[in-house]
Amino acid sequence: MMPIARANENYTSQYTAVAETLTAPQPRTAFQTQPSRYRHWKLAFPDEGKGAIATLTMAVQAQATERPGYELKLNSYDLAVDVELADAVQRLVFEHPEVRCVVLTGALDRVFCAGANIGMLATSTHAFKVNFCKFTNETRLSIEDASAAGGKRFLAALNGTASGGGYELALACDRILLVDDRSSAVSFPELPLLGVLPGTGGLTRVTDKRKVRRDRADVFATVAEGIKGKRAVDWGLVDAIAPLSKWKEEVGRHARELAASITPRAGKGVELTPLTCEREDDHWRYSHVEVVFERETRTARMTLRLPDASGPKDASAALAAGAAWWPFALLRELDDALLWLRLHEPEVGLVLARVEGDPSVVMEADAVLAARGNWFVAEVAHFVKRTLKRLENSAKSFYAVADGGTAFAGTFLELALACDRVYLLKDDDENVQLGVSQVHEGLYPMANGLTRLQTRFLAEPERVSRVLEHAPKALDAETADELGLATFAPDAIDWEDELRLAVEERASFSPDALTGMEQNVRTAGPETMETKIFGRLSAWQNWIFQRPNAVGEKGALKVYGTPLRPEFDFRRT
Amino acid sequence: MMPIARANENYTSQYTAVAETLTAPQPRTAFQTQPSRYRHWKLAFPDEGKGAIATLTMAVQAQATERPGYELKLNSYDLAVDVELADAVQRLVFEHPEVRCVVLTGALDRVFCAGANIGMLATSTHAFKVNFCKFTNETRLSIEDASAAGGKRFLAALNGTASGGGYELALACDRILLVDDRSSAVSFPELPLLGVLPGTGGLTRVTDKRKVRRDRADVFATVAEGIKGKRAVDWGLVDAIAPLSKWKEEVGRHARELAASITPRAGKGVELTPLTCEREDDHWRYSHVEVVFERETRTARMTLRLPDASGPKDASAALAAGAAWWPFALLRELDDALLWLRLHEPEVGLVLARVEGDPSVVMEADAVLAARGNWFVAEVAHFVKRTLKRLENSAKSFYAVADGGTAFAGTFLELALACDRVYLLKDDDENVQLGVSQVHEGLYPMANGLTRLQTRFLAEPERVSRVLEHAPKALDAETADELGLATFAPDAIDWEDELRLAVEERASFSPDALTGMEQNVRTAGPETMETKIFGRLSAWQNWIFQRPNAVGEKGALKVYGTPLRPEFDFRRT
Repeated sequence: MMPIARANENYTSQYTAVAETLTAPQPRTAFQTQPSRYRHWKLAFPDEGKGAIATLTMAVQAQATERPGYELKLNSYDLAVDVELADAVQRLVFEHPEVRCVVLTGALDRVFCAGANIGMLATSTHAFKVNFCKFTNETRLSIEDASAAGGKRFLAALNGTASGGGYELALACDRILLVDDRSSAVSFPELPLLGVLPGTGGLTRVTDKRKVRRDRADVFATVAEGIKGKRAVDWGLVDAIAPLSKWKEEVGRHARELAASITPRAGKGVELTPLTCEREDDHWRYSHVEVVFERETRTARMTLRLPDASGPKDASAALAAGAAWWPFALLRELDDALLWLRLHEPEVGLVLARVEGDPSVVMEADAVLAARGNWFVAEVAHFVKRTLKRLENSAKSFYAVADGGTAFAGTFLELALACDRVYLLKDDDENVQLGVSQVHEGLYPMANGLTRLQTRFLAEPERVSRVLEHAPKALDAETADELGLATFAPDAIDWEDELRLAVEERASFSPDALTGMEQNVRTAGPETMETKIFGRLSAWQNWIFQRPNAVGEKGALKVYGTPLRPEFDFRRT
Repeated sequence: MMPIARANENYTSQYTAVAETLTAPQPRTAFQTQPSRYRHWKLAFPDEGKGAIATLTMAVQAQATERPGYELKLNSYDLAVDVELADAVQRLVFEHPEVRCVVLTGALDRVFCAGANIGMLATSTHAFKVNFCKFTNETRLSIEDASAAGGKRFLAALNGTASGGGYELALACDRILLVDDRSSAVSFPELPLLGVLPGTGGLTRVTDKRKVRRDRADVFATVAEGIKGKRAVDWGLVDAIAPLSKWKEEVGRHARELAASITPRAGKGVELTPLTCEREDDHWRYSHVEVVFERETRTARMTLRLPDASGPKDASAALAAGAAWWPFALLRELDDALLWLRLHEPEVGLVLARVEGDPSVVMEADAVLAARGNWFVAEVAHFVKRTLKRLENSAKSFYAVADGGTAFAGTFLELALACDRVYLLKDDDENVQLGVSQVHEGLYPMANGLTRLQTRFLAEPERVSRVLEHAPKALDAETADELGLATFAPDAIDWEDELRLAVEERASFSPDALTGMEQNVRTAGPETMETKIFGRLSAWQNWIFQRPNAVGEKGALKVYGTPLRPEFDFRRT
């Protein structure tokens, strides 16, 4: 995130400090949108005849902010802008399988994107800043995931300076082309100008994705005006530069080159139909997902309901069903519910997840998913993977509650394994079912690169195959417990008390300590660029976001854009 | 860190809240000590005849605190206690090569160690807490390093409950034996009682070293009274239990078993003679190391001086020289200076490192080091490795300044590569020398498991061998720059201005943002248990240590031990 460097543009004059507006009730941002409602992005298909290339142009409307109190000048962004970007990426994946290269560029003169809006950051609560950074990181990762899934390549065509979050967006692309006009640069001005870090994975992507030498990364992160031209190429910050005179030509050439590296996908796209949800204060009702709030214990009871019939039996039928294919429809609702929980229900600390239905319904859908018979089914599996990661990356505790009538099977057993604990009712009189399917073998890898079973059984890897031997099959509670799938498996006599105490206990703990503990315990084993971004970079940013040097009355983030200079407590910690 | 759980012991009665004492001038803790001055540990050699086993018994003197304001009851510890532990581990390594197993145990009844003292934490500044946790983590890692170096195994003989930091200390050992007396447990009561995290690597060691299942780690971290007996073994929290009636016998058996797994080391130990340093306010003078402070730019100029002659030509001569062997003597001084800089010079943000002398002197010593001809030389190399990591883990910026008269060669080129930047004077008239030796091939791996050259050239691995081809040889500035060893290589005309501006610029930045940036940029590439501890777990703890839920007037850490209950802002972030 962040603005054009002071050195390049008179950014200060663009930004007017505003009074604290945090106490005013804020509109509840929704995460559902569609291209016809975009205010900040233009999605176009310039070579419509061939269909291989799409352009996604950033043209932020300064006044169309997520809340009052700031303006989005110079293609700076807030959550509303990023919600549209996230939507655009999903729609490109599902609705436009014919597109093989997406060109990300900017509509302003000499500016690609000035990063996250400073006025917005300076007037946001700590919790909002953290949630905002988390969401923008997930959006960048969804770009990389779309590329890794093999459907598209992304070209960042930097028509002007890309600062902070603007450059971080470019870093998420497969290739970065920067205009060589003697002024346009890539830059991370956060540290020198604002006393914070690039918060959307930038430092990690610079050192671990682009493998920029660490001393150069250090220099780059402290040079407000950024690096341009040949040096940007030499240091590995961009892949190529092109003069203004050849800009269009070069963008086209790189885009065609990237498109050519992708195997075309057959068939028409799948329209992402709108989700519907009835929302009352303490009750959200989607088609398959229901969330009921128990305010006293700061708990949400989330129930996922499987359909009665499994539906499409093969990939073609799934593609024909499109957004109505139930695993996709259900997971899209779950994803939306998670985002709402994060942003609009900060007081909720614990989610009790139940899955109701018949395991055989999941088994049949899982067989289709695991076979990845066409691009659509494969992309739905990636979507499920991202949603499970979204859950694991939420600052809430999750307990899977497997009691009478539940069916944590296959894809939904993965959901249970993504939870912090599994409570399993062991009672022969109750219909408690779990089930294992082919999806556990690697369809939904975690952020650490391992499967959930591998992560769970790090100490006893032989247990992984012991579970997989049962696939595809429903399991009774006794067997599931023996296989090590439950955290606690009380009988009917102890069940209610044990669960009630577990909920009350969780609700009593420091919410901060829980967030820190879960962030450390959920991803055991290897680290990846992705786990580093959330577990390491975000943690340091969260720390800095709390420090007076950033957010105190004279902190750098607070006084930026005012005539005041920051005053630091220079003691190093 | 942390106390016996409330459920086990009436800890509250042991702890008296004290008034804020932070404004009072504090004594400057020194890091040099010796067994005869230990107040908190007893080092004994019970099988003196055979010499294979040592016992290190924790017997904390409650009144002998690092500063006033709290008491160290129940074998709880503060920095003074950990300084002695760090010293004991180093002396066991160097002075007692005959010892093959170290038994860590406690002198109190039913208590092994109650962890870091809460009164100390509650009355410490944020910076001190962070520094304290960092040092205790390094001490635990030095235990693991001593084991990995092949010289000793460590047995945690938990004669009673090990809480928080007490259990974290056990986790650093090769084997954990817990007394089975129906009350003694291992526990992490930090989250439930204090609203913070185990701060000395505990969560990471539980999931990544002991590979405890993540849902069980979640439960363990929330159960104040801990886990005991058979369940502690089943969950992998300890390796074995033993009843009181067989305690001595079982401790002996495990210790002998561990000792038997170690190849005996020949010869006598090397006495760690005291370091000497003249300290004035703005000037520290060790024998080989000098530190001069420039308060205005919050900068320390640190000069390392090589001896005129290389000294011992082989491992036997090095062993005979012992603590006087100059690479060891010099690095011990550097290590001490780093600790003093961290703890006693918080305002200093930038260290300018110079190495003066003749590269050939280093080359000869490096040849001895790289050959690892006996246990002593090998352990000195490990010590150098730990000191370089200590530098990389310090919350200061480091610039290597290679100008006239300097010789960043071999081991000292590693020092330059450990710095954030290398400024290299490129001027034929000046005697600027660098040099490469065999040590770059893997003698001093970084915390990420790679060599410094591998980390530096992640994007261009062929550059590593291009550098190594020159070893062992001194390099002129021109060649060093071509090989990619310098960040900036100005000529004599630009040198002074460029360096001055770089220093002034660094001094002007937010110290917090610099710490966060350096923590992310310094360790590119793979993560290890060690990098996770400092980069991920510590970051979350630092964040929590700033939050009102922990350290506010009604925060859990503040009110623990008083009649008050914590009051939380329950919004999850």
